[in-house]
Order: sequence, then C-alpha cells, then structure tokens
Amino acid sequence: MANFTTRVYNFNAGPAMLPTEVMEKAQGEFLNYQGTGMSVMEMSHRGKHFQDILDKSVHDLRKLLSIPDRYGVVYFPGGATLQFSAIPLNYLGEGDSADFALTGVWAVKAREEAKKFYPNVNIIFDGKDSGYMNLPTITDASVSDKAKYVYITSNNTIYGTRYSTLPKLTKAPLIADMTSELLSRKLNVEDFSVIFAGAQKNIGPSGLTVVIFDKEKLPQVSHPIPNLMNYILMEKNGSLYNTPPTYSIYIAGLVYSWLLERGGLEEMEKQNEKKAALLYDAIDSSSLYNAPVPKPFRSTMNVVFRMKDTKLDEKFLELAEANGLAGLKGYRDMGGFRASIYNAMPLAGVETLVSFMKEFEKTKA
Amino acid sequence: MANFTTRVYNFNAGPAMLPTEVMEKAQGEFLNYQGTGMSVMEMSHRGKHFQDILDKSVHDLRKLLSIPDRYGVVYFPGGATLQFSAIPLNYLGEGDSADFALTGVWAVKAREEAKKFYPNVNIIFDGKDSGYMNLPTITDASVSDKAKYVYITSNNTIYGTRYSTLPKLTKAPLIADMTSELLSRKLNVEDFSVIFAGAQKNIGPSGLTVVIFDKEKLPQVSHPIPNLMNYILMEKNGSLYNTPPTYSIYIAGLVYSWLLERGGLEEMEKQNEKKAALLYDAIDSSSLYNAPVPKPFRSTMNVVFRMKDTKLDEKFLELAEANGLAGLKGYRDMGGFRASIYNAMPLAGVETLVSFMKEFEKTKA
Repeated sequence: MANFTTRVYNFNAGPAMLPTEVMEKAQGEFLNYQGTGMSVMEMSHRGKHFQDILDKSVHDLRKLLSIPDRYGVVYFPGGATLQFSAIPLNYLGEGDSADFALTGVWAVKAREEAKKFYPNVNIIFDGKDSGYMNLPTITDASVSDKAKYVYITSNNTIYGTRYSTLPKLTKAPLIADMTSELLSRKLNVEDFSVIFAGAQKNIGPSGLTVVIFDKEKLPQVSHPIPNLMNYILMEKNGSLYNTPPTYSIYIAGLVYSWLLERGGLEEMEKQNEKKAALLYDAIDSSSLYNAPVPKPFRSTMNVVFRMKDTKLDEKFLELAEANGLAGLKGYRDMGGFRASIYNAMPLAGVETLVSFMKEFEKTKA
Repeated sequence: MANFTTRVYNFNAGPAMLPTEVMEKAQGEFLNYQGTGMSVMEMSHRGKHFQDILDKSVHDLRKLLSIPDRYGVVYFPGGATLQFSAIPLNYLGEGDSADFALTGVWAVKAREEAKKFYPNVNIIFDGKDSGYMNLPTITDASVSDKAKYVYITSNNTIYGTRYSTLPKLTKAPLIADMTSELLSRKLNVEDFSVIFAGAQKNIGPSGLTVVIFDKEKLPQVSHPIPNLMNYILMEKNGSLYNTPPTYSIYIAGLVYSWLLERGGLEEMEKQNEKKAALLYDAIDSSSLYNAPVPKPFRSTMNVVFRMKDTKLDEKFLELAEANGLAGLKGYRDMGGFRASIYNAMPLAGVETLVSFMKEFEKTKA
C-alpha cells in the first residue's frame, strides 16, 4: 500500500476531504485552543468558549445561506438517518400522508422509515426502473391533495444526479435532504420548510447534522417524540438540549469561515461548476470513459463514470491510488467510478484526475 | 483571561480532559493517518482503514471489560439522551412497566422520557428529598413484580454520588447508565442487561455513545422503533447501519489502547481510588472545605465540595483558573465546586489541586 508523506486528492463520497487550511488550523490548536490549555474536544459545552464557537457557527451559516429569522438552525446528532425518523414524527399525525420522490436509495430509506410510523405515505415519483438515472420535475400539479409535505433528496450521492432546478411549491411544504450538496451552490432557503444535511460531505465530520426549518410551518403534534428528534425542543435549547457533538460543530464552524473567506456560495458554485465541467468534458470527449447520467441531471458534487471495458477497472483504481487519487471506486451496487468533488476538492485535484485519466486511456487501454 | 502555553489540569465534568498522550498521537496524524494522505475524519466508513479502527476499538473494549460474546457492543450517536428514548422503545411494549431508581437529574430525565411512551413506568427510589445525597440498596426485594427491567444511573455526575457496590439482581434485567464512570473501575458486565455510556467522560469526544447489551435478553417488540434507536439493527450492522461518528470512534480506540497499555481497569481503579482519597482526605481534614456526600456514596470520578463561606467561591475559582486548574465550578443548580477526576486526570493534577486548596485556605480564608 502506498505511503504518502503529503495529503492526497481524496475523492471519497463521505466522510470526505475537508479543506486542508481548516485541518491545519484545527491541528495547530488541537491540544490547546486559544490559550485555554485544552482542546475544544475537552471543553464544557456550557462554557463561554464553546458557546462562542457554537454561536459564531450558526451566525456564519445563516450568513452563507441568507437564512431568514423565522427559520431555526439546529445541530442534531446521528446523520440524515435520524432525520428520516424525525421528520415524519414532527410533521405527521395518525392517518396523515406525505409525498416522496424516490430518486435513489436515500429517498427510499427515508420513505420506508416514514411508512413504519405512517403507512399512508405516498410515492409521487419512482426512478427505480431507470436505475435512478432520471429525476422528476415536481410542481404543484405533482402534489397529492392530502400530502402534508413533499420530500426530496436534492443530490443523489450514489448515482451522481441532482435537481439542476430545485422545485418551488405552494401547495405543500417542501422538505429536502441536501446532505451531499448543501453549501455547494446558492439556495433560496424560503422555498423549503426543512433542509437538512449530514455534515460529512461539505460541512465537517460525520455524526453531525444541520437542520434548517421554518418554525412557523412546524405543526403541533399530539404523540410523543423522542427528545433528540424533537424540533421544537432542540431549537428552543439552541442545540444544547444535551451535550452535542462539540468538536464536530467546531470543525463545521471553521469550514463556514473558510467558505466566507473565499466569497461564499456564489463563488463556490462557480468553482464547483468549473470543476464538474472539466471532468464531465473529459469523460464525454473520451472513447474509453462514459458518464451514465443524462446531462440535465448531472451532479456537480458526485461525478459517476464508467469504462467501456470493465476488465480495466481494478488497474485504474490501483494506479489512481498509487498516484495520490484516492476514493474513486463507485458505490458498491453501482460499480465503475465516482469522483466526489465537494467544496474542499481544489481545481488542481480535478485537473490531476483528468490528466491521469487521459494518460491511462493512452497507455493502458 | 489567562493565556496558557501548555495544557492545564482540566476538571470539567464532560466533555472532559482526554489523555495528553492520546491527544498528541491524534494531533500527529491529524492530516495524514498512517501514510494514507488523509485524516481519519476524511475516510470512508466503508473502507479498510476505518473498518480496522472500528474492529480494533470493539476488540479492545471487549478485552478491557471482559465482555462475553453474547453481548453486543455498539456505537450509537447522540449521547445518553438518545438511550433514554431507545431503551424503553427496545425493551417495553404497550402497558409494560419498568422500575427506575431516581438518584439525580439524569435518572429523572430517563424516566420522564420512558413515561412519555409507557405511562406505567415505576419509581422504586426517589432521592429528591435528600438533594440526591443518598443512594438506595437495590435487591430483588426492591423490584416490582411487573418490572421488565430495573434502571439505574451508576454514577451521578452532578451530585458526586455512586453505587460503591452495584446491584446484582435475578428478578429483572438491570440496565445502567454508566456515562460518568464506565472504564474507571472493574465491572462484572454479566450483572447487567444493558450498560451504556456517553463518551465524553472517560471514552472520547461528545456525540458518541457505547452500548453493551445482552442479545439474549433483548425482547421482540411489535411497534416500530426509529432505525438509529434499534438495538437489533444497529448490532447486526456492526455500528455501520449509517455513517457513524467515525472520528470519535477513532479517539475512543486510542483511549482504549492507552488504558490497556497502563494495565487496564484494575490498575485504573487503583489510581482512581488513590486520586479520590487524596482529594476527599484534604477536604475532610480542612476547616474551610466540606464534602456534602456521605462517605458510602462518594464518587471517585466527580468530587463535589463546598466552602463554609460561599463569599469566597468567586475568588477560589478565579485563582484556580489562573493557576491552571480549570473547570472546578459546581453544576449550575448545585453551586460550590466539583472536581471531575476521570482516568485522564493524572495524580499530579489532583496533587496540584490539593496544594492549591491548602494554600488558599491558609492565605485567603
């Protein structure tokens, strides 16, 4: 196995590459945060230092996304999977229904979890037959009369698809799992009742989830909700109902600062589009590689591609690894390759990958 | 505010001091874990490197606690609070009851959460009137006939109390929140059906919980359980049903190695008893300080003490802070002081605190 003395270009889908500048800053103060004589990991979550870290991170996230005051911004533990349970429990009551657009495994799991508690949840789109290569156009006309909300996965990490244009509804609140794309492009938060994202793509370490929700659209429900899934309780306590994943919140805060220093989401979106275009162009113009996702649905975060001759897959991955291009293996059920190029992946990383792919095509294929 | 160039003695109750050796090791490989060119924080949870970290950590924890094979060892997100919901949901059905020993805020919260779902849960001890300064002796005779389990908090962080001798029951399964003492003393795991502990005291960063449970005593329930609370599902998937808090598991693993290198729990127990005795003796032999907890119930992890003249409290804390003794303020509702002396607190830290207390008594009181 290769033994690198410097950092590689890490194309993992998540947990994923974090900005090297952020990691260096965290490393520098790992044992002693700002002269306190202790790590952020060792601080009381009720103390002034951590409260400042938490407050600043929420402030910066609100700034990055222009989040209106009526939206709560809450850190939850447990990843998107916890929200798959929390959302129906907070938004539905007995007999209620919601509309799910099944654009991949994560939407299917979210719907299955909701169905365990509320058997009436509905499917308004199922991409299974297309291998999840297509996404629906969701408008008010798509929404069932009884739907208490419409649920989407805005970017599908496994298949490399995304809604280029996100739905805008008036008939029902829109709830979006944005785990693999939040903070990668501009966003109109007011088009959503709930936006949530597991941190391990563009935000920070795994085990942390950001939930942004319209407090005015949260219904009163009469059944019990487990405390750590209760939106009202968690928001009222400013993410401090219990001891939150403090170190992960600190890293997230460093990432937000890094984004703001680099021009915020407008600039990120430009860079992400440039990186994705470079890679998709290289694939499309090659006779060895191909991208299975139709152009209108292509993700800028997860670029899925294949080789015409799958016998070369192993060799490609081996050589890529040896050249400091890590994590390119496709999702277990998908095969082929996936280059996840989140905010932290520099343009140089994508350029290096493209060069490697061209060289491989010329000499090995 | 003081500006320390070295690490202080950190007496925070949790998140708490971690072993400096562990922190230095983690810092050294923060940007590049074992030549992989990436941080553990940036690695796929499905990759070989993280799987090795996870497997080794579970192996070492089993070794430290001599955990029998029939017990599952699972990492959950969310802290003890998530288990307050998960335990009744996994162990009770409609109409069922369980017995709770209320020895402090955390037991009360666990019982309130259980009661939300199962109104029949029972109280077999309530320490409220004693200010939670007393603990019960729980035997089979204490257990209600209908109790599906008996629930205790083995060490009460806030009040500085613990069961010196843990209960041993045959009439009903025993479930224990050991958040603030797991790994601090020897333990017979087989006396419990479930042991759980939030990591942020003796294990690692906050946002991670270790659950050890007897798979043979887990009942089949017919109601839906949120996936991230489902003991069977989480165990079957080896803590990888979803993306777990990978970095926190890595730190926990480093802590287990550190404990094994130092002789395991037998040695830890000796050292912890020595540290606690030193501090309690200093308090008991002083005419300024006093410890409110009766001797049989005194915790070796959280040493609660007060001054006869509370007007000096502020000054004591200020001077202690300035002398590199951090986190000594008592819990918000308790006032006074609390020195949390988990495994990571070296004897030298307690000695320094005792010297400081004596000096303060001599010169300021």
